[in-house]
Amino acid sequence: MSTAEADLIDRLRATLGPQAVLSGADLPARNQQDWSTLGPVRPLAVVRPADPQGVATALGAAVAAGIAVVPQGGLTGLAGGARPIEGAIALSLERLTGIEEIDPAAATMTVRAGTTLEAVQRAAEDAGFFFALDLGARGSCTIGGNLSTNAGGNRVLRYGMARDMVLGLEAALPDGTLVTSLNKMLKNNAGYDLKQLFVGSEGTLGIITRAVLRLHPAPACTMAALCGLASYDAVLAFLAAARRGLGPILSAFEVMWPDYWQVATERVAGVRSPIGRGHAFYVLVEAQGSDSADAGRFDAWLESEAEAGLIEDAAVAQSLADVKAFWGVRDAAAELKLVLGPHASFDIGLPVAGMDAYARACREALAAELPGCLGLFYGHIADGNMHIVACVPGADPQPYAPIDAVVYRLVRQHGGTISAEHGIGLKKKPYLPYTRTPEELALMRVVKQAIDPKGLLNPGKVL
Amino acid sequence: MSTAEADLIDRLRATLGPQAVLSGADLPARNQQDWSTLGPVRPLAVVRPADPQGVATALGAAVAAGIAVVPQGGLTGLAGGARPIEGAIALSLERLTGIEEIDPAAATMTVRAGTTLEAVQRAAEDAGFFFALDLGARGSCTIGGNLSTNAGGNRVLRYGMARDMVLGLEAALPDGTLVTSLNKMLKNNAGYDLKQLFVGSEGTLGIITRAVLRLHPAPACTMAALCGLASYDAVLAFLAAARRGLGPILSAFEVMWPDYWQVATERVAGVRSPIGRGHAFYVLVEAQGSDSADAGRFDAWLESEAEAGLIEDAAVAQSLADVKAFWGVRDAAAELKLVLGPHASFDIGLPVAGMDAYARACREALAAELPGCLGLFYGHIADGNMHIVACVPGADPQPYAPIDAVVYRLVRQHGGTISAEHGIGLKKKPYLPYTRTPEELALMRVVKQAIDPKGLLNPGKVL
Repeated sequence: MSTAEADLIDRLRATLGPQAVLSGADLPARNQQDWSTLGPVRPLAVVRPADPQGVATALGAAVAAGIAVVPQGGLTGLAGGARPIEGAIALSLERLTGIEEIDPAAATMTVRAGTTLEAVQRAAEDAGFFFALDLGARGSCTIGGNLSTNAGGNRVLRYGMARDMVLGLEAALPDGTLVTSLNKMLKNNAGYDLKQLFVGSEGTLGIITRAVLRLHPAPACTMAALCGLASYDAVLAFLAAARRGLGPILSAFEVMWPDYWQVATERVAGVRSPIGRGHAFYVLVEAQGSDSADAGRFDAWLESEAEAGLIEDAAVAQSLADVKAFWGVRDAAAELKLVLGPHASFDIGLPVAGMDAYARACREALAAELPGCLGLFYGHIADGNMHIVACVPGADPQPYAPIDAVVYRLVRQHGGTISAEHGIGLKKKPYLPYTRTPEELALMRVVKQAIDPKGLLNPGKVL
Repeated sequence: MSTAEADLIDRLRATLGPQAVLSGADLPARNQQDWSTLGPVRPLAVVRPADPQGVATALGAAVAAGIAVVPQGGLTGLAGGARPIEGAIALSLERLTGIEEIDPAAATMTVRAGTTLEAVQRAAEDAGFFFALDLGARGSCTIGGNLSTNAGGNRVLRYGMARDMVLGLEAALPDGTLVTSLNKMLKNNAGYDLKQLFVGSEGTLGIITRAVLRLHPAPACTMAALCGLASYDAVLAFLAAARRGLGPILSAFEVMWPDYWQVATERVAGVRSPIGRGHAFYVLVEAQGSDSADAGRFDAWLESEAEAGLIEDAAVAQSLADVKAFWGVRDAAAELKLVLGPHASFDIGLPVAGMDAYARACREALAAELPGCLGLFYGHIADGNMHIVACVPGADPQPYAPIDAVVYRLVRQHGGTISAEHGIGLKKKPYLPYTRTPEELALMRVVKQAIDPKGLLNPGKVL
């Protein structure tokens, strides 16, 4: 450890308290890696401020000392955005937790960045509201991480992404400033909308410390069905029918290709198939109603689509437990590691109409170029977002780089994006030019350089 | 005209064609002012490129020559953002018009910035879709202006602001670069979301040349009612009931205070009152249904609220002509100039619960500090956005500055924003610190300086 590094750690301990700074033998294993397939790294120290000003102070002090900082939330990122860097401070938001206020009149919640998504969802529910962001890692991921990656998840179709659920934000800048913009109003056009800089920039422009979240009315009822369909054309027609017939109560439309379906329902523990096998596509369609009449409407709509021959088979949830079980098939994606072992996972975006053509091309190319390579396809089709899990069963190590090359080459050919929702982090950085033009990349660098001129905040991530 | 100015004009004429550059005696009166109360100014020249690259070329050439540029759309802004500057180029998007593509599968429209909002709405309708942005100036304002000011309007409650209706954007930068990000996917987390820089920054960071807009399904039916209520508490309870009872089909909730109502229904030509006078508040509530069952649902909901005693009187639209007539009372705001003469108008934002307290305080302070001063209040209450029209009848000139001072002093006291939707432009700049902290303003300046280091793009606006 250099003198500058030791000095910084001493000063942070003195300012933030000894329990806020962990180094040497005390460095927790947890903070040395995230959920990406990249291995662990020992940071210089883990710094865990307990209030927003502490985050700004720590960041400003590190940057002034020429030492890099990597922000860390729930460490559930799959792109490596929170992966520590040797010689850098890992600035963890894990002690900056708690809900500061729920304002029923404004339908907002003010929350600290380290609070888990699940805690936010529960607090909203307890107050008679609904917080619409939802994703598999809800129990571990934090709202600060959700916002800094602009998380998507299951109900983007109806409620938008994390960006659409935030009204106000507070962030610490590399110069140690704390910018507090805890706006609670739906509309505020007084100057630049600064929160947009920090949402989705993966902690490279500032560290989010608090947020004002937008709450929605709690749904009065939730309806769901799992359907088997015969072709991708039928899936597209069913999506159009759902938009038309369910209108704004449609809250999710998840599609699973049969290879995914088979692994999820036959190999993942605790997951059962509510309909028979043998379909070309499986669709989980969900609607959230504002009164009980909507339940009848959902049933009538589904029946008419079945009569019209659009779906081959369907199971309709009879209870919230059924809704949960149906989601279990989709959420089994998080358990694939247990049955497949290490694998690559993707969150590409594509024009909706061309998603099956992509899946077929990708499955074929993976098998041709990497013998034995499996590709499982599923995703938030209505949003143009496809997930892929790919691996060569039994291979150790997995051929991650060649798999990436196949998947992203085809994304470029099919006019898609290399990241619909997980972000770029470290892992997708080499492929960013597949989705962004040189002019776009240059403008991103201009913004980065202006706000972090020394390049010490989450360096090497995204750009 | 200096040599540098004459040189620039000659070069732009040679590059863009003679009809693209108007100066001297040819300078159109139209481009010398906008709808703000600020008077006309003669710019150095009006430059009207016919394609996106022409905009980038003109902007880059002007900035390289040290000459400022003011972007102009439909010139309907009320804050002075498009007001020309002496010695600067007025860069008008008026020839950059037309819809380039409607993609039904993606539900998107790619459009050039100078296209009017009304043309966009009609093209969406012709293609079986709905473009949700709507505001009084629809026939004159342009989509580029709507996006660069992050326009709000009548249906923010359901569909969000202009920011929420754009998926991709192309913009010209002060260095002459054209940054093309015409993304059509709902989700794209590949690096910074650059379009956010240009939406709502009022042409101070770049000039929007094209956009990919998000289209919604066309509503199957539109229901509306005009209701009289006895108190602001009743208005708040009625809003909560509308959110609960109508759920996501609720598309507008406009409130008019009685002083506005009286002038609109008794003095504006062609506007009639569908219900009796004498109520403390008037509410226009609108819902857009996805099937005809929603019409019955609206009627049943309204009837139950009437039975519960929440509303004193109501007229329910029996036809689309009725819906239009009901909106006529609200849209009469645009005609007030004809009956009141010159007046100040405002678009403040406030916490919803405190809006009537603000209106009472403001009405009283205006009358006390500026004898004879009228204040008319109305607005998009569900969004926390109140409009105010204020004037001293007969005064010439109107005491604009003292009226501003009263309105904004009370906005600060009541925890509001000086602009919910019209933007800052020139007129609200002195009051920006009432709504934004020094840290926020400093960060805005960092962004401005990085992208427009010479400060020649729409100088003096916003910051």
